Amino acid sequence: MADQSYHMTPEEFRNYGHTVVDWIADYYKKIETFPVLSRVNPGEIRQLLPREAPRQPEGFSAILRDVDKVVLPGVTHWQSPNFFAYFPANASGAAILGDLVSSALGVQGMLWATSPACTELETHVLDWLVPMLGLPHKFLSRESGGGVIQDTASSSSLCAMLAARERVTGYRSNHQGCRQRLVAYTSNQAHSSIEKAAMVSGIGSDNLRLVAVDERFAMRPEALAAHIGKDRAAGFIPFFVSATVGTTSSNALDPLPAIGAICKENKLWFHVDAAMSGTAALCPEFRYIQDGIEFADSYTFNPHKWMFTNFDCNCFYVADRKSLIDTLSILPEYLRNLATESGAVIDYRDWHIPLGRRFRSLKLWFVIRYYGIEGLQFHVRRHVAQAQQFLAWVQQDDRFEIAAPAPLNLVCFRHRGGDKSNEELMERLNRSGELYLTHTRLNGQLTLRFCVGQTNTTERHVERAWRRIQQEADYITRQNTKAGRLPL
Amino acid sequence: MADQSYHMTPEEFRNYGHTVVDWIADYYKKIETFPVLSRVNPGEIRQLLPREAPRQPEGFSAILRDVDKVVLPGVTHWQSPNFFAYFPANASGAAILGDLVSSALGVQGMLWATSPACTELETHVLDWLVPMLGLPHKFLSRESGGGVIQDTASSSSLCAMLAARERVTGYRSNHQGCRQRLVAYTSNQAHSSIEKAAMVSGIGSDNLRLVAVDERFAMRPEALAAHIGKDRAAGFIPFFVSATVGTTSSNALDPLPAIGAICKENKLWFHVDAAMSGTAALCPEFRYIQDGIEFADSYTFNPHKWMFTNFDCNCFYVADRKSLIDTLSILPEYLRNLATESGAVIDYRDWHIPLGRRFRSLKLWFVIRYYGIEGLQFHVRRHVAQAQQFLAWVQQDDRFEIAAPAPLNLVCFRHRGGDKSNEELMERLNRSGELYLTHTRLNGQLTLRFCVGQTNTTERHVERAWRRIQQEADYITRQNTKAGRLPL
Repeated sequence: MADQSYHMTPEEFRNYGHTVVDWIADYYKKIETFPVLSRVNPGEIRQLLPREAPRQPEGFSAILRDVDKVVLPGVTHWQSPNFFAYFPANASGAAILGDLVSSALGVQGMLWATSPACTELETHVLDWLVPMLGLPHKFLSRESGGGVIQDTASSSSLCAMLAARERVTGYRSNHQGCRQRLVAYTSNQAHSSIEKAAMVSGIGSDNLRLVAVDERFAMRPEALAAHIGKDRAAGFIPFFVSATVGTTSSNALDPLPAIGAICKENKLWFHVDAAMSGTAALCPEFRYIQDGIEFADSYTFNPHKWMFTNFDCNCFYVADRKSLIDTLSILPEYLRNLATESGAVIDYRDWHIPLGRRFRSLKLWFVIRYYGIEGLQFHVRRHVAQAQQFLAWVQQDDRFEIAAPAPLNLVCFRHRGGDKSNEELMERLNRSGELYLTHTRLNGQLTLRFCVGQTNTTERHVERAWRRIQQEADYITRQNTKAGRLPL
Repeated sequence: MADQSYHMTPEEFRNYGHTVVDWIADYYKKIETFPVLSRVNPGEIRQLLPREAPRQPEGFSAILRDVDKVVLPGVTHWQSPNFFAYFPANASGAAILGDLVSSALGVQGMLWATSPACTELETHVLDWLVPMLGLPHKFLSRESGGGVIQDTASSSSLCAMLAARERVTGYRSNHQGCRQRLVAYTSNQAHSSIEKAAMVSGIGSDNLRLVAVDERFAMRPEALAAHIGKDRAAGFIPFFVSATVGTTSSNALDPLPAIGAICKENKLWFHVDAAMSGTAALCPEFRYIQDGIEFADSYTFNPHKWMFTNFDCNCFYVADRKSLIDTLSILPEYLRNLATESGAVIDYRDWHIPLGRRFRSLKLWFVIRYYGIEGLQFHVRRHVAQAQQFLAWVQQDDRFEIAAPAPLNLVCFRHRGGDKSNEELMERLNRSGELYLTHTRLNGQLTLRFCVGQTNTTERHVERAWRRIQQEADYITRQNTKAGRLPL
């Protein structure tokens, strides 16, 4: 078919597709043989790439060969079971295949009409998650609320702040600009995305109060209340509080009931960011982390972190979908259609910043069905148990100290030798390629973070990681002894 | 392995993966047998779904069966060659497989360090596109600028407006809030995302001037200049102009040289939105559409529309990357790392709203290499030729009129029988399932849009679409005759 020149035919796709699937299966089989943290230097990958794009088509095998030759050396293996850095971004076979179906269907679900299944499956699966996680019924689509999939919690939190901004200004700041002296609140341990949202939305980061935390790094409600009082007295208009269930730095749990009560009393929008830890609520025994969530106007968590659903898949819930839609809706003529006019459907383009959207609920649906609630609970419990085991080991080693409470799957700890020792420990471990962990700073001190959440991490990987950490601690002790310092 | 309970093993992945690939190959082979526009009613898909998520795992085959049974009836087939609605969101085998590799690697490229290849391949491929599209050298990463992949042009245009807002306020509105009386400009034919950006960014849609257009629906530069003068006189601060290369409504081309000169004179940020039509610049003979682009501070187009790269893949370029980074950068301790501190790398989290990001350049790299520049040019030329053939047919039929210039692959036309006839024509065609086209309103009149851009659309599909449109026009003529109206 001359018509089809250059295109991949369905039969070629079948053939190359099998090859890629095999490549992936093999990648996962040998994933532990790669250094977890890529070892390339800046610019090294680009040097392997031709300066100009090819004029003529290259064969598919040549491209796939370069995935091995050019791409893999520059990959930090987030799917390695030895990945303990940041928060995880775990994936699973079911998610990858669900996402593949989404890529192939290639539907753009901006409106219900542009693919009803894309909208309805998303609404439905997000409704499924409400009882799965023990969230309040008001987040259900059959009540006043509803859920939507966004790319990241950064975007969701921005939307929450925007809806709050509009509500408090009587939906005027959208039109007149953000003219009033609005102030928002979050803890000084909150994710940087809250500050970014204040910048983007025209509120200004000077008008975001970073509320003090207690010794557990959780927001102090009385400090929040004091800020609000002081701001009101100074003529500011408090409008928004973002609490965190599991901060990025140390997994601190803000006290939602007390914060929620303050928000209710002061009529502030109450947003809850549970980016990674929200997944723990799949297990009834961990659900206490979100006690007080019934106060929330909006809630967000990321199945793409700890729920075996590959990036990107953030879930965002609002208690009053009208406030979100009124904030983000614009209907140009070229998007008008009968279904939208009927008012009987959801058009998700009105629930976030982008207009276009892919069929992301497919992968989440695949994951929930493939694992079942029990399978998901099983793995969350295992990750938590592994992290708790790690915590116990650290506690038994005098050279280390625990730097923050570890309620779930993140352990913050440090070598007692000070920042330099911890830095050296971390660099040596990461350079070894055998595991990857990252740091934060708590009470001014450099602190190591060990987060268990990669899909294939088992007891064996955690045990080996701890052994390697101990070995490097031995090395530091030897160095210190040699240098005549305390041998710690 | 008890360890791996519930997970899909690599061998199971291989097996199920082959099944899914085969399913996709078969889907593409039979795609023309589905009605292009889904026929389900609101709620119909949800009724097929169980009210609660399964407690126990379901087999993979059961899930895949439901893709056929539950999902497909609710899909509007954007990848059907008979899809002529909106702007396309075309895909290709190479893109789908590139995206599959991205899902499987599951890297999160927020920082260079979290996967150097994710960052470097993206920078490199976006550099490739600069000469491929004939864009100015200042957009190259080795010059002052650079490109980044975002989800949609909506998000990119928002970032452009934010960077402009920061530049004009001396990077103060990020901190102090958007307090100044800023005004932005775009044409009254611009995409709704520009209005959304004004709302989100705290500028306010009242402070976005919708500049009048000429008879070709292109922005009138003298009207823009008049607005700016009037606004300055009234104490406003003009700061941003967004011009469109190929408006969504009618594919109108704003005159960039004149607008650019006004921006330069007035020191306004000049953003150019070429969401779909930008791809045409792959062919030297269509490159005139972006004459004047050398004035632009930022530029965006979507390979996920017309460049065979499945959604989402928007390319965003800035001439001065520092202004963008200074606008969006926040560096919390937990993201600090040696590579970032060295200043030798790009951290793309500072180039957009989300923090997390997937490895989207892979699919774009696969596409460019699989087709080669010549393959891409071949298909763009064919789509344009098909649309121009369609245009000629419409012009030869007295019952229809052309509603706007059709420089590329979008033809705006209408039946001379008025809005009701056009509405009926469109509804009947779309209900037939044989093709899908949508409408807009130009000069107050309902206008049909016929956009040729789906990967597998060939002359045969366009010809048949035109025959079907003529048949429905015959039907309308008969109805009118019966009713004693003019038989048009």
